[in-house]
Amino acid sequence: MDDITGILVDLFVIFFAARLAGELFLRLKQPAIVGEVLAGVAIGPYALGLIGSPSADFLTLFQGDDEAATEALNVVYDVIAGLGVIILLFFVGLETRLSELMAVRNRAVAVGVLGIVFPWLLGFAFVYATGQSDVESAFVATAMVATSVGITARVLGDLGVMTSEEARIILGAAIVDDILGLLLLAVVSSWGEGDVDVVELVLTAALAIAFVVFAASAGTHVSRRYSIHLERLHLENGAFLVAMLLMLGLSALAGVIGLAAIIGAFLAGLILAEADERFELERQSRPIYEFLTPFFFVIIGTKVDLAEFKNAEVLAIAVAVTGLAIAGKLAGGMLGARGMPLRNAAIVGAGMIPRGEVGLVAAGIGAGIGAVSQDMFAVVVFMSIATTLVAPPALSALYGGRHVLKVVPADDFTEP
Amino acid sequence: MDDITGILVDLFVIFFAARLAGELFLRLKQPAIVGEVLAGVAIGPYALGLIGSPSADFLTLFQGDDEAATEALNVVYDVIAGLGVIILLFFVGLETRLSELMAVRNRAVAVGVLGIVFPWLLGFAFVYATGQSDVESAFVATAMVATSVGITARVLGDLGVMTSEEARIILGAAIVDDILGLLLLAVVSSWGEGDVDVVELVLTAALAIAFVVFAASAGTHVSRRYSIHLERLHLENGAFLVAMLLMLGLSALAGVIGLAAIIGAFLAGLILAEADERFELERQSRPIYEFLTPFFFVIIGTKVDLAEFKNAEVLAIAVAVTGLAIAGKLAGGMLGARGMPLRNAAIVGAGMIPRGEVGLVAAGIGAGIGAVSQDMFAVVVFMSIATTLVAPPALSALYGGRHVLKVVPADDFTEP
Repeated sequence: MDDITGILVDLFVIFFAARLAGELFLRLKQPAIVGEVLAGVAIGPYALGLIGSPSADFLTLFQGDDEAATEALNVVYDVIAGLGVIILLFFVGLETRLSELMAVRNRAVAVGVLGIVFPWLLGFAFVYATGQSDVESAFVATAMVATSVGITARVLGDLGVMTSEEARIILGAAIVDDILGLLLLAVVSSWGEGDVDVVELVLTAALAIAFVVFAASAGTHVSRRYSIHLERLHLENGAFLVAMLLMLGLSALAGVIGLAAIIGAFLAGLILAEADERFELERQSRPIYEFLTPFFFVIIGTKVDLAEFKNAEVLAIAVAVTGLAIAGKLAGGMLGARGMPLRNAAIVGAGMIPRGEVGLVAAGIGAGIGAVSQDMFAVVVFMSIATTLVAPPALSALYGGRHVLKVVPADDFTEP
Repeated sequence: MDDITGILVDLFVIFFAARLAGELFLRLKQPAIVGEVLAGVAIGPYALGLIGSPSADFLTLFQGDDEAATEALNVVYDVIAGLGVIILLFFVGLETRLSELMAVRNRAVAVGVLGIVFPWLLGFAFVYATGQSDVESAFVATAMVATSVGITARVLGDLGVMTSEEARIILGAAIVDDILGLLLLAVVSSWGEGDVDVVELVLTAALAIAFVVFAASAGTHVSRRYSIHLERLHLENGAFLVAMLLMLGLSALAGVIGLAAIIGAFLAGLILAEADERFELERQSRPIYEFLTPFFFVIIGTKVDLAEFKNAEVLAIAVAVTGLAIAGKLAGGMLGARGMPLRNAAIVGAGMIPRGEVGLVAAGIGAGIGAVSQDMFAVVVFMSIATTLVAPPALSALYGGRHVLKVVPADDFTEP
């Protein structure tokens, strides 16, 4: 076994920073999550540098190759962060009934589709107008489409409104959004490589949709009928272990298909929300969620390098792109949710604003094939972080400035 | 954020293998933990190779450097495994009262000291007799001394006897054992580098002892008096979050001092066992323990390369060293626990047998400075794994073949 002391110190620093900033922001009547992301910016390698630098012992594992050791550290952080957001979305899924999701499906699809179309067109037109190539503009626009629902889910959870109609529309729209975002990324990547394969695109689409539909329908059916048999396992707490297995399995599978891993985690939760053990599972997953989730939000913050925005032109483009990303999702969301009271529609729109890590992945692929420049990558990073920071106070304000609403006791959720 | 899909697949495979093997072994009336370690051997890079090979996407993060990518994967596994064994020992600490530990302190110290002396002398004499150098023999002997109490803790937990007198002696002895093992390793390392610094050794000893004594005495005192103030935090579940913070912090600090991280985690649990919230903390840490701990045992197994033992001489030495490692700890433990009924003393001795990863660290340091050959390293690996596999069935048998005893409900533990 390698000596992981240095990494343990890092994890302690991250967790401590998360909790300190969270507590501080709550006392200032601000969302804890904003404090966590900013704490990440502060302790990250581009500011205080409390984390992200390999120790001497760690370097020796990589024969002194500083770049490889740093990358390995980043992988470790990303895995812990990834587990954090996976358990978060699993937990959200557990609090969601398929029937409730289906009840809002038309609005969810409209919000998902319009929330892709608006930001993409606005983003493409603007970036192209600033003089970038068509392919590069398409990559930046694509990085602007995919909502990272983890941030919204956490805020809705903190506000105690996870089971509201708006929350269900947002969750449903996030699934639609992720599937369309995947396809768009596939199209743009192929275009960037000069080789659009329609058959492959259709297959990707079919696979993604089949995965979601099959998991949601067959999975919940099996869960309703057969979860009782989990009692037969000799392992203690068999139901919980099967739940964790399903969570890891569907997350990995979603990732293999090309969807965000969190979509798989959400579906795993959705499936188990139909099981007899759902309240017990909620009770058992909550501590894992509380332990691991803060890592995700702090680690997002550590990716920010403020120095990249010393260039005024890049900063101006970044601010404009962020504005369009916010306006596009808000408009798409509100239009998709039309017919609801205006404030509720605005909640749906605001809930779709955070781009988080999904945009970074798209821009990263573009950078990987040389289609996205360093400057435009920095723009996408800015937009991802800024949208992440804007959404929590916006949601909080739209919910009337409540920060921690009363938490609905689990026993109050009954089959509709 | 890097794409961690490949690692999610690995984690799913590890968790699935752990639970499948655990369930299978329980049905065969064998300890689950043995199944988990063997599952690790089976899926590891030296056998089926289901985990441990970087994916193509992952390789690109390391510019195609296969060695660096593989090492990074190992670091990720080791961090997850490390968190697993840390939460395990934290949980064990939560179930241990300082007063109960102090009540068995004389026996614990005797078991710890004799359990170091016997295996070291037996190991050194034998390895030296097979023709290795004195320094190499000293490294192998040192790798034979440090008990890895995680394995025993898990078995005692599975058997439902965590609060027995034997369990408390084993836990206390493991702390003594770890401090002495640290010092011995410091001596042998300095010897290997031809430079024994007595002042540094005394400082290391003083620091390690001060850490343990301070954490155990001042920490429990503060916990008893002030834990009530945790309610004032604005964060939900403040007590639990502070507990996780203390667990990570003391683990990291123990590691920085040179002790095993799990000693810090145990002390964090021991401190919080005095808090008003202890039962609540036990309830909340259990799911994290159940989720993360299996990774530790499977990942130990993945380190085993059976091919190294095709050389009959190496295999013979490995078997002999394992025999001496078992006999030495059993004798040291039983002698240290003399005065107890023979079966209980044997339980103490058997509980000290597993060497797990601690021996590997010692041998790794020796290999790092060129004092331990590839062959002798393989011998230590064999001894570590074999002692790990021997202890669970031995303990199970000594406890009368019970596999899962009735679990004592938390409310039954009252202040003595």
